[in-house]
Amino acid sequence: MHRDTNVRSFAKAFSWRIFGSLTTTVIVYVFTKRVQVALFVGVVELVGKILLFWLHERLWERIPLGKHEPTPTVIWFTGLSGSGKTTIAQWVHAELRRRGIRAEYLDGDTIRHLFPTTGFTRTDRDQHIRRVGYLASKLEENGVFVVASFISPYEESRAFVRGLCRNFVEVYVSTPLEECERRDVKGLYARARRGEIRNFTGIDDPYEAPANADVVIDTRGVTVEESGGKVLNRIRGNL
Amino acid sequence: MHRDTNVRSFAKAFSWRIFGSLTTTVIVYVFTKRVQVALFVGVVELVGKILLFWLHERLWERIPLGKHEPTPTVIWFTGLSGSGKTTIAQWVHAELRRRGIRAEYLDGDTIRHLFPTTGFTRTDRDQHIRRVGYLASKLEENGVFVVASFISPYEESRAFVRGLCRNFVEVYVSTPLEECERRDVKGLYARARRGEIRNFTGIDDPYEAPANADVVIDTRGVTVEESGGKVLNRIRGNL
Repeated sequence: MHRDTNVRSFAKAFSWRIFGSLTTTVIVYVFTKRVQVALFVGVVELVGKILLFWLHERLWERIPLGKHEPTPTVIWFTGLSGSGKTTIAQWVHAELRRRGIRAEYLDGDTIRHLFPTTGFTRTDRDQHIRRVGYLASKLEENGVFVVASFISPYEESRAFVRGLCRNFVEVYVSTPLEECERRDVKGLYARARRGEIRNFTGIDDPYEAPANADVVIDTRGVTVEESGGKVLNRIRGNL
Repeated sequence: MHRDTNVRSFAKAFSWRIFGSLTTTVIVYVFTKRVQVALFVGVVELVGKILLFWLHERLWERIPLGKHEPTPTVIWFTGLSGSGKTTIAQWVHAELRRRGIRAEYLDGDTIRHLFPTTGFTRTDRDQHIRRVGYLASKLEENGVFVVASFISPYEESRAFVRGLCRNFVEVYVSTPLEECERRDVKGLYARARRGEIRNFTGIDDPYEAPANADVVIDTRGVTVEESGGKVLNRIRGNL
C-alpha cells in the first residue's frame, strides 16, 4: 500500500487549480461580462484554493473508501512432468504482473536447484511441497499472489497446502501420461524407463490425481492463452 | 499498491466541490455584491466541476509522482537462546505494523512446530536457516518487511541468507552466555547441562558470533523500547 507524500498532494493542488480557476474566470465573465472582475476572482481563487485542496488531499489520505486491493490468491498447478503446467503457470504469472498485481512465481526446478539435497522419496517430496506451501501462504498473507507449478503428486501434501492458505485455487493439468511421455521435452521419461531415474512420477511413483480441482486443463489441442484464460477467469473476482 | 476506484474519485469530486463552490460563491459576492450572480456562478460551477475533478483524479491515478513505497528490508536477529532477541524482534514487528507497513514475523519455534522433523545437527540447522532465508527473501522481493528471530549460530548460513536478500540488516543480540543461562526462561540450559538435550547452542554446539553485525544489542540493563528503537533507527531510511 503506497502513501501519498506531501509533494504529490501539492502537485495535485497546483494541477487542479489550472483547470479550476480558468473555469471560474470564464463563468464569472459569462455572468458579469466584466473582464476585470473575472480576472480578480480567478487570481484570488487560484491562491486560496491551493491550500484548501492540499488540506482536502491530506484528509482523503486517511479515508480508505475506494482504495481497491486485490484479494491475494495461491494458484497451485499440479500435474505430471511434461503436462504443460509450467508453461501455463508462467503465462498466468506474466499476465498478473502485466496488470500491476504483486505476484510471485514458484516452481520445483528453481527451488530444488537452490536446495540440492532435497530428494524424491515420498517423505522428501511431501516435506518439499509442505515447505513450498508455507512459503506460498506467507506471501499470500502479505498481499502477494502466488503462481506455483509443482508435480505435487500426493493428495495429502496438497491438502496440507490448501489448509495453510486463505484463497487456494487448484489447477489440475490433466494431460495423460501417454501424451507427456510422447512429448518428453527433457528426456526424463526415457531415462526413467531405462531405470536411470528412480521414483519418477507416473513410472515408478504414483500420481494421485485431484478429485476436486478448481480448474482442470487437458493441454491436448488447446493454446496456452486458452488454458491461462480459463485460470484467470476462475480468479477474476480476486483481481 | 492499491488502485483508486471510480467510486473513490467521484466521492472526492463531490467532497471537494462542497468546499470549492462555497468559496467561489463568497468570492464572487465580495467582488460583485450581487447575491443572485454569486449563487448562479456557484451552482453552475458545482455541477460542471464535479466531472472535471473526476477526470483529473483518473489522470493522476496514472502518475507515480509522490506515491511513497517503503523499501522492504529483512531484519535478522541472531543470538543465543534466552538472549532476548525474540522479545525485541516482536516489538519491532509490532511497531512496523502500527505504522501501516506490511511486515511478517518469523521465528524458529513457530516454523519448527510446523515442520517437526527438522533436527539440530549442523546440516539440519544450516538447511533450516537457508530455507527460512529463502522465504524471507521472497517476501522482501514482493514488498514485505521481514523480522526474523533465529539463533542461527553459523556464520555460513547467515552469509547465505544475506546473499539472497536485497536489504539485509543483521541484529546481533549479544547478551553473554552466563546471563542467558542465568535467565533460562524455558529451562533449556539446565536440561542441556544435564545432557537431556544434545547439540544445544552455547553448551555443546558452537555459536559463531557475527563479526560485522549492523546492530549489536547487549540486553543487560536496557529496555525493550531502547533496543527496538536502536533497530528502527538503523532502518529509518527504508520506512
